[in-house]
Amino acid sequence: MATVKLWSDEEVSANPRVKAVFDDIRVTRKSDFVNNFWRALANQPQLLERTWSSIRQVMVEPGALDPLTKELIYIAVSTINSCSYCVHSHTAAARAKGLTDQQHAEFLAVVGMAAETNALANALQVPVDAEFAIE
Amino acid sequence: MATVKLWSDEEVSANPRVKAVFDDIRVTRKSDFVNNFWRALANQPQLLERTWSSIRQVMVEPGALDPLTKELIYIAVSTINSCSYCVHSHTAAARAKGLTDQQHAEFLAVVGMAAETNALANALQVPVDAEFAIE
Amino acid sequence: MATVKLWSDEEVSANPRVKAVFDDIRVTRKSDFVNNFWRALANQPQLLERTWSSIRQVMVEPGALDPLTKELIYIAVSTINSCSYCVHSHTAAARAKGLTDQQHAEFLAVVGMAAETNALANALQVPVDAEFAIE
Amino acid sequence: MATVKLWSDEEVSANPRVKAVFDDIRVTRKSDFVNNFWRALANQPQLLERTWSSIRQVMVEPGALDPLTKELIYIAVSTINSCSYCVHSHTAAARAKGLTDQQHAEFLAVVGMAAETNALANALQVPVDAEFAIE
Amino acid sequence: MATVKLWSDEEVSANPRVKAVFDDIRVTRKSDFVNNFWRALANQPQLLERTWSSIRQVMVEPGALDPLTKELIYIAVSTINSCSYCVHSHTAAARAKGLTDQQHAEFLAVVGMAAETNALANALQVPVDAEFAIE
Amino acid sequence: MATVKLWSDEEVSANPRVKAVFDDIRVTRKSDFVNNFWRALANQPQLLERTWSSIRQVMVEPGALDPLTKELIYIAVSTINSCSYCVHSHTAAARAKGLTDQQHAEFLAVVGMAAETNALANALQVPVDAEFAIE
Repeated sequence: MATVKLWSDEEVSANPRVKAVFDDIRVTRKSDFVNNFWRALANQPQLLERTWSSIRQVMVEPGALDPLTKELIYIAVSTINSCSYCVHSHTAAARAKGLTDQQHAEFLAVVGMAAETNALANALQVPVDAEFAIE
Repeated sequence: MATVKLWSDEEVSANPRVKAVFDDIRVTRKSDFVNNFWRALANQPQLLERTWSSIRQVMVEPGALDPLTKELIYIAVSTINSCSYCVHSHTAAARAKGLTDQQHAEFLAVVGMAAETNALANALQVPVDAEFAIE
Repeated sequence: MATVKLWSDEEVSANPRVKAVFDDIRVTRKSDFVNNFWRALANQPQLLERTWSSIRQVMVEPGALDPLTKELIYIAVSTINSCSYCVHSHTAAARAKGLTDQQHAEFLAVVGMAAETNALANALQVPVDAEFAIE
Repeated sequence: MATVKLWSDEEVSANPRVKAVFDDIRVTRKSDFVNNFWRALANQPQLLERTWSSIRQVMVEPGALDPLTKELIYIAVSTINSCSYCVHSHTAAARAKGLTDQQHAEFLAVVGMAAETNALANALQVPVDAEFAIE
Repeated sequence: MATVKLWSDEEVSANPRVKAVFDDIRVTRKSDFVNNFWRALANQPQLLERTWSSIRQVMVEPGALDPLTKELIYIAVSTINSCSYCVHSHTAAARAKGLTDQQHAEFLAVVGMAAETNALANALQVPVDAEFAIE
Repeated sequence: MATVKLWSDEEVSANPRVKAVFDDIRVTRKSDFVNNFWRALANQPQLLERTWSSIRQVMVEPGALDPLTKELIYIAVSTINSCSYCVHSHTAAARAKGLTDQQHAEFLAVVGMAAETNALANALQVPVDAEFAIE
């Protein structure tokens, strides 16, 4: 259960500000499905607008990283933050963008090794090498 | 300061088990530089061997994800785990593998948005959509 | 499911040490409802006593921060620690103490921005400005 | 040391896009001091613009929560995320907004108790009470 | 629901590489029960092999720490990482290795106090005492 | 640098409430050295008293877990919370209580494996097995 109400399509339609964002999500994603994250954020129209605007800029508009790489980075962050919802939604998104089982397996191996060596470096309090300084 | 001694090259040379790992790191990376993480792990030869063996398998051997993508996933995990050492070492590694400033900027934007939406989804306790189930 | 038994009111009544804490919770909160967190802690009477005593001192007794502000700080911590139970219980508590939808929306915006800039500062390893020193 | 270059005022002045943000920071905060976080973000003008725009909307514009409460929420998130830079910068900001020693003491007590009970609830895997459901 | 398929015993039997790991798990643990973690990892045979091999070396082979102490360390890490699955599986494992209710109560008290003082030390940014340096 | 003043012995002596806690720390630990954590907490006498009282109850008084095991659990939590100060202080404490290099090596291996499998279980969103239910 959520800590806020999840907005139905009817409730969305009755609020022009929320409806405008949902319309843009549907057009941008070329899909009628709008997931629960946005239905929860609908309670906070200003936050909904800013979050969707940022997500569209960062995750949808073309840039220097390909869309699948961006999804993998997103899942990595979500995994370490123990965000169950985000792991589910972005793993689904990565699959929709072509993630293969072999890529998923390698992704998991990298995330696992990073988590392990992070714990080791933190437990050992390893000092940063001077060689890592920029310039 | 570290919670364990950092091994000098002399100390490494005097321990055949540790020396074998350091030799392999140098050959594999085609560089004489061995960073402090391994000098700290040298106190635990079995852990040193297993960790290097896993890192080589996961990060060095060719696979379904390109080396730069794997470094970005590694930095993402290290950032969320607040592992200062790991952020430094893997950002340096990513640069050595060709990370451009534009790619770094996009990476930061994705990590930032993921952290923000993770916090929102956790605060809202958004239930996972049935649509995300794998068939 | 919990990793320990949740104590029923009958079981509580049969244990004077646990009953004393539950009685004080009910009197202090002016409510007969005692939530599952305390029913799980009932397995560890000493920890139950110390935890309730601290919570009462910190969260119930009047001080320099108002009760709603303290609940918001509590939810912020719980969100970042991904404690689903705590997000639910303290969001409910904040609502009972008068949290409005508009305040909740702003709270979410602050938590989200903090999480995002934390990730950016950690990824950039920004050095602390000398100007932030006390004195 | 940072993983990116920190921009000097001279470098900022030479880049109109970055200069515009720094000018707005100075005008908004009524201070000539611009802290290192922004000097690091200057390497990513688009991210700099979006981040400052969001921070100004969330933290500067008047709303339903007072400025000091928002800073306390910010420090709580930064503490749990182990963001050393952010704890320093927002504790300094809270002091500038009137945080008293007594308020800081209570804030610390709340953050500490929340972290402790988060750990207990996660270790006990306490199920969410039906009473916490909204509506 | 998982983000990957959980392998049934029939599917395991049809894949010699996966079957070899499952056979070793059953022989090593002297039990026919193989928990869902391994059924999820079965999708990534190389990762499955490496993870089981490491777990067997670290958690099963005799060493300088007794098996119950290792389980308690494992639960402590899992609790702070908010890994619900891992808290459940390793609390069950600790009980199977003899964890008493009194030991569990003390374990919870230590984990709680550590989480609390971690938050305090991070919020206070306490500098490391010179006395903690090794040698 | 800390976000609060660290109290010198002279300042402690001038405050009877703080002095009483420092005296008890010195008597309890049979050592004149009082580390910076307590010198930072001295700014909040009530929090100082409550924290020391809890630490003494949990970490000093004899119980069902031996002192070294409790320190290892403490370091595990501190490592995952990225509390640099706490990792240093409790690794020093563990050494003072007899931690051997071989035990430290095994501890690191367990913490590393737990962090790795936590990440895997969270990324895979493995459902909890019914077999882990208590009773």
